[in-house]
Amino acid sequence: MADMKSIQSFIEDNREDYIALLKRMVQEPSKAGEEAGVQSIVADRLSSKGFEVDRWELDYKLLSEHEAFCASRADFDGSENVVGVLKGEGNGKSILLNGHIDVVPEGEREQWRFDPYSGKVEDGKLYGRGATDMKGGNLAALLAIEAIQGAGIKLKGDVIFQSVVEEESGGSGTLAAIERGYRADAALIPEPTNMRIFPKQQGSMWFKVHIYGKSAHGGTRYEGMSAIQKAAIVHEAILDLERERNEPLDSPLYQGNPIPVPINIGKIAGGNWPSSVPDQVTMEGRMGVAPGESLNDAKREFEARLAKLYEADEWFAEAPVEVEWFGARWLPGEIDDDHPFLKTLKESYQSQVGEQPVIKASPWGTDGGLLTALAGIPTVVFGPGETNMAHFPNEYIELESIFETASIIAETVLEWCEAASVEE
Amino acid sequence: MADMKSIQSFIEDNREDYIALLKRMVQEPSKAGEEAGVQSIVADRLSSKGFEVDRWELDYKLLSEHEAFCASRADFDGSENVVGVLKGEGNGKSILLNGHIDVVPEGEREQWRFDPYSGKVEDGKLYGRGATDMKGGNLAALLAIEAIQGAGIKLKGDVIFQSVVEEESGGSGTLAAIERGYRADAALIPEPTNMRIFPKQQGSMWFKVHIYGKSAHGGTRYEGMSAIQKAAIVHEAILDLERERNEPLDSPLYQGNPIPVPINIGKIAGGNWPSSVPDQVTMEGRMGVAPGESLNDAKREFEARLAKLYEADEWFAEAPVEVEWFGARWLPGEIDDDHPFLKTLKESYQSQVGEQPVIKASPWGTDGGLLTALAGIPTVVFGPGETNMAHFPNEYIELESIFETASIIAETVLEWCEAASVEE
Repeated sequence: MADMKSIQSFIEDNREDYIALLKRMVQEPSKAGEEAGVQSIVADRLSSKGFEVDRWELDYKLLSEHEAFCASRADFDGSENVVGVLKGEGNGKSILLNGHIDVVPEGEREQWRFDPYSGKVEDGKLYGRGATDMKGGNLAALLAIEAIQGAGIKLKGDVIFQSVVEEESGGSGTLAAIERGYRADAALIPEPTNMRIFPKQQGSMWFKVHIYGKSAHGGTRYEGMSAIQKAAIVHEAILDLERERNEPLDSPLYQGNPIPVPINIGKIAGGNWPSSVPDQVTMEGRMGVAPGESLNDAKREFEARLAKLYEADEWFAEAPVEVEWFGARWLPGEIDDDHPFLKTLKESYQSQVGEQPVIKASPWGTDGGLLTALAGIPTVVFGPGETNMAHFPNEYIELESIFETASIIAETVLEWCEAASVEE
Repeated sequence: MADMKSIQSFIEDNREDYIALLKRMVQEPSKAGEEAGVQSIVADRLSSKGFEVDRWELDYKLLSEHEAFCASRADFDGSENVVGVLKGEGNGKSILLNGHIDVVPEGEREQWRFDPYSGKVEDGKLYGRGATDMKGGNLAALLAIEAIQGAGIKLKGDVIFQSVVEEESGGSGTLAAIERGYRADAALIPEPTNMRIFPKQQGSMWFKVHIYGKSAHGGTRYEGMSAIQKAAIVHEAILDLERERNEPLDSPLYQGNPIPVPINIGKIAGGNWPSSVPDQVTMEGRMGVAPGESLNDAKREFEARLAKLYEADEWFAEAPVEVEWFGARWLPGEIDDDHPFLKTLKESYQSQVGEQPVIKASPWGTDGGLLTALAGIPTVVFGPGETNMAHFPNEYIELESIFETASIIAETVLEWCEAASVEE
């Protein structure tokens, strides 16, 4: 395929330029509310490459009225989406490349080998907060399109490149882009899947469970009831529920995954004095939601299970636990197993890498859930970098994986949107 | 017994004066470092009644070098002990009446019906922080001696009245009095036992247990190890240890007490994100120490048990728990079952109340542990008021119980120290 040879040459010839661009992007600490710097870089780049650029600050009031709205902020001041549209020549299928530009905080600086916003390159790795999650992926997608352009190819279908905010805290950036009317025949999100293909994405939501006991002096603890002991019973009940929810999940995508849709207890706090019987404990956790399942059904199932705790321990009849849904949530997302876009991506991977791709269900949520549920866009998640880098100190991305991903995305886009003509 | 008739008359005739004195004592909020006001009242009173008064600020540096030292403060500025000695006529046994004058903080004012330092009297109860724990008890002891004086009786043995600070946070007040050389043939501490007699007092000490897991994303929680789940295993192991430690305790004093020397887990905290597997949990608790047991032996037993956790769960071989002893501790205390002072107290109770006293082991520590262990003074705890009032909002004491206790203490002192002569 002559086109792909030109595309690969472009990528090969311009590695240093793209590493420099990624470095500049990582050097902008685009935490929530501080995305303007990096969005200017992205918008300028898209403009210079012939995209029509749409840049706007998220409208908090408008979005907050949407039933899918979820945010940990009280405003979106300074948080702008950037969308670039590269109009096709016509009669082709369109593609949406969606990546978030917001990053999570860097945490404790002392734990970083380098400044978290240095973008330092060492041994083929680029370091910095957001390198993997997910500026590296965004760069791969951008490079894919620019390589197609660089090879002198025009596409029939439109390419929509979205650099969105707020993925890390509820997805309002993608929600805003959907509300603004952007649609496509398929979407690819280059989140760090370690170049595995995720046709299903797990949804999730956060909960608090409040457990009550009865206070007493520690020296006569038998006069009280320990909320810490009761919390252990609640934890076991939640793990029983997890087991029951996971047993029926038999998709081949879950093969080898011991718990496809886990329920995790991440935090516990309770009691206030070593020599008092604790009368209150709160556990915080994350409930995974299977593709195809509604968040509300999952909530109801969880609440119903905890409402029945008294059957195993009558204390809970006297002091029922309370469930609170709070913080972030992500809708599950999926694409049909036999969807032609998924097929195209698999074939491109095979063609570029020379072996079969690994196909899995993602263990975490992405903005793909919103694209599927609200905009009806079949979405696949596929990108460079490893999840276990994300949100940790010393986050880095292997540069090679970016270039490999870019060539796979380029071939996918070329197949999906189709070449209109090759300039002579 | 003519002497006791006069003593009872004195108590009956002077109720209102002593209620007024207790009220003044409660109105002085003698929290740690703020005891000077109430100690002046006590010192003046003792002086006016012919006691030799010794008043001194605790020497932090000196005390902190003592192996039994334990304090939650960094200095003892403003914290003075008051000791009054009423010399006997000679050839009698001496008695030490020890009570602490420090009170715990009042907590949230909104939870109090009255100002916590009002000393308001209603329906035979006097309200306020410290009313029960233990200014009421101190007043009962003082009244006992003043009633003996009021009846015109001189004693053969010395009476040492100690109004000490720092009981609530480690016992440095009593430690300082021991170091200053005060000794007696027997001691009585009028802590709120609800007029039960406690010949044994439970010791206790505080611990932290640090439990480790392995972090992972909640969506792939099977890649981590939950420290919260492991904490439940540690908790169970601690309760097993508690069971084993309590089984051999067969003293009749423990009759009807399901767990004479409990180990209480009072506080838990761990994990830091709902969708992360928690890699660290800390539990804080209080270990009861039986009379006759050393704190060090109890510590070693606790640590040895947790060091063996890997036998039940191999995770603990990889990530052993860590035990930390912190904060307060109280030595256990006791008096021989057949000690004549205990016999005298029981008989005085029987004589004044007309029925057998309830004899129990205390479920909490007092300064009696220090008196027994460091000064070799046989000590009994017996006083008015209920433990479950202490440290809570709306603390109050039934005034009647103070006067009843005073008459029992008076008879005990009279029997123990013996009347030297009666003034005609």
